[in-house]
Amino acid sequence: MSRTHRHTPSTTLATTNPTTLAEAELILERCNDLAGLSRHPERMERVHLSPEHKAANELAATWMAEAGLSTWQDAAGNQCGRLEGSEPGLPALLLGSHLDTVPDAGRYDGMLGVLLAIQVVSRIRDSGIPLPFALEVVAFGDEEGTRFGMALLGSRALAGTWNDDWWQLTDKDGITLAEAFQDFGLDPARLPGAFRRPGSLVGYLEAHIEQGPFLEDAGRRLGVVTSIAGARRFALVMTGHAGHAGGTPYDRRRDALVGASELVIEVERLSKQQHVIGTVGRLQAFPGGVNVIPGRVEFSLDLRAEFDPDRDESVALIFAAAESIAERRGLSFSATEIYRADATVCDPGLQDAVFAGIRATGDTDPMRMWSRAGHDGVAVADLTAIAMLFIRCRGGVSHHPDEHVKKVDVAAALDAFEAAVLAVAASTPARSAA
Amino acid sequence: MSRTHRHTPSTTLATTNPTTLAEAELILERCNDLAGLSRHPERMERVHLSPEHKAANELAATWMAEAGLSTWQDAAGNQCGRLEGSEPGLPALLLGSHLDTVPDAGRYDGMLGVLLAIQVVSRIRDSGIPLPFALEVVAFGDEEGTRFGMALLGSRALAGTWNDDWWQLTDKDGITLAEAFQDFGLDPARLPGAFRRPGSLVGYLEAHIEQGPFLEDAGRRLGVVTSIAGARRFALVMTGHAGHAGGTPYDRRRDALVGASELVIEVERLSKQQHVIGTVGRLQAFPGGVNVIPGRVEFSLDLRAEFDPDRDESVALIFAAAESIAERRGLSFSATEIYRADATVCDPGLQDAVFAGIRATGDTDPMRMWSRAGHDGVAVADLTAIAMLFIRCRGGVSHHPDEHVKKVDVAAALDAFEAAVLAVAASTPARSAA
Repeated sequence: MSRTHRHTPSTTLATTNPTTLAEAELILERCNDLAGLSRHPERMERVHLSPEHKAANELAATWMAEAGLSTWQDAAGNQCGRLEGSEPGLPALLLGSHLDTVPDAGRYDGMLGVLLAIQVVSRIRDSGIPLPFALEVVAFGDEEGTRFGMALLGSRALAGTWNDDWWQLTDKDGITLAEAFQDFGLDPARLPGAFRRPGSLVGYLEAHIEQGPFLEDAGRRLGVVTSIAGARRFALVMTGHAGHAGGTPYDRRRDALVGASELVIEVERLSKQQHVIGTVGRLQAFPGGVNVIPGRVEFSLDLRAEFDPDRDESVALIFAAAESIAERRGLSFSATEIYRADATVCDPGLQDAVFAGIRATGDTDPMRMWSRAGHDGVAVADLTAIAMLFIRCRGGVSHHPDEHVKKVDVAAALDAFEAAVLAVAASTPARSAA
Repeated sequence: MSRTHRHTPSTTLATTNPTTLAEAELILERCNDLAGLSRHPERMERVHLSPEHKAANELAATWMAEAGLSTWQDAAGNQCGRLEGSEPGLPALLLGSHLDTVPDAGRYDGMLGVLLAIQVVSRIRDSGIPLPFALEVVAFGDEEGTRFGMALLGSRALAGTWNDDWWQLTDKDGITLAEAFQDFGLDPARLPGAFRRPGSLVGYLEAHIEQGPFLEDAGRRLGVVTSIAGARRFALVMTGHAGHAGGTPYDRRRDALVGASELVIEVERLSKQQHVIGTVGRLQAFPGGVNVIPGRVEFSLDLRAEFDPDRDESVALIFAAAESIAERRGLSFSATEIYRADATVCDPGLQDAVFAGIRATGDTDPMRMWSRAGHDGVAVADLTAIAMLFIRCRGGVSHHPDEHVKKVDVAAALDAFEAAVLAVAASTPARSAA
């Protein structure tokens, strides 16, 4: 594939270069191919260690191999590929994102970043430019946490921040994470083989759709991520007493759903007041009879903010509100933390490389922004420096079938991502393999 | 079984008569036996046309046969038994209740009425008193509507008020009612065989736990039901737009769960204000990801009142509130009526018989009350005169594993129910078989 004019944006912007647009088209076709690997024919859902996950890994491995990468699936189920640098065995710059999805997902969140990374490696392989590091693409198997309620299982394994308590996490069918590993053909005892050593890495770059409307509102295609918001997630339970919907007067009711509903509204009110982002995404009333007062409600809380102290103060306010509701209504309230990530600051040097990459596409003053969504980088940052490139998505919509990116924006992202990698190379002193 | 002193309450009240207490004990043991026929080992759930339903019918048939009844399962899956009166083929006084349950149920709602009916027939058979009507016991297969969302499927079939649209109702696994009939060994085409002719019946008497606290608060064991509240039930859907919990600012959210939560609170507030009983028993948010803004909420509304116009006015107020919430939040709201029963007045003559039956247990001025809960009598009243005997239950609790009745109250109910049947006989002119 000829890309002779790629680095002369003044005359051949990605958005008008037919070759680059053809590459963007290929990437979008591959997003569609992956979308076919779904648990449900009518809606996208691909969760960790599922048959669809295995099929997605195999497909990604095929594309990686076509791009010149040597491929393997690591001990955590992440699909990996490697292109050596100027000499074999150099530390690697990781490029990646994830292949798992939320229920009823779109087709770009995660997958687009993996496919951009593969295409960037393909370009660099084709160019024959010797880099002072190896390039690795990693397609993480779990970022969303859909199946086991615990996010970032793939990237936590890679970062070596695994907690053995997680083996006992169960999915909705009661299958433990350990059993799911075995069903997938993985051996939990071999998990440490997925851990990477800090010295084996140069850093981690990820391209991802923004999942928010800020780039679109600003008329920008791409953005540089400065930090990834911290998030805390809780499994909440409001417990009352089930009873007959007709026979139980209001003054004797202990209706868990009315209490939980009050808390849902308080989460919104307090989050707005505190300028944080609080969401109740899951809620179900039990036992669930149309003529039975709900005795128990299971629901979730996701809370994130640019700064961790703001987030934690809001958690405290929300739980105080929950206790107050429970006391007034004769209910009991409990909360179990199922996920916690503090805010992750992107590495200044890698941010500069992403900034330079976007400038190479003709945007003279790239927009910097913080990520409201969590990403694999949160986990990877425990191991090595990270940075991210954001791509605008239509209406800021994600986690929904309407998720959409423009082909021209994908083309721009491809040029920017490659240029960012070359910028990292330019600032990396030549070194020998460890 | 000797019951010589049964009708001399001044000296041998049911609550101190060892023979009657032994019968009550037997009835409670049978309630426990039925409780073992559950879909889940750890909690009671027995729904229409399930394997547990079949087993419960078979067990009830055994007990009916022991009581001297000839038994059959009707074309709707109701378990029936008949004891002829003074001559074969006389119209029948129906005694009955239901064998199905809500999820996570108690063990008396429905079942106690069936078992009291069987024991009353056993007593009358033993006494050899020739009645001017046959006695039939009917154990309805569906009163609660747990499986198909449509209540009273058993009694509606008996009453001949069946709607063929119901064949397409589906359970949560997508099985239609027609398929469930076939799986149970029933032929939908033969359903009309379950319909009864008005001329074949004298009336319908049902004993049932109160499912409310009013008898207990008044210090009474038993009560006469004057009417059964009308109820309307709706399947509600609030639709918004799913999106990423982090990336979507509040001013762009169309969160279906916050809207539904506001409505849950409005249902409580408006119901109290209007002196009606409104309950949201089911609620689930979709797609249900912990980090996804809910795009759709499916929930239910059950509304009942002593008088139908009050109920209907409250439905209108609640729907107006729902539309207002939906408009303010950019959501859409829909409601589908899944059940409707107008208030059912109990027959004055049969009420008097129940009143006399309770007086026979030593309560000189039995309490009269309206039933907040719906019952099979709502459907049967379309066919023949009905009345009900209420039995107090602890704390007014029902539709919950804590549902409890005292053995002495069951003993009193047994005497009262039998005496009520004899009172109906005393007021029925002798007549020939049709």
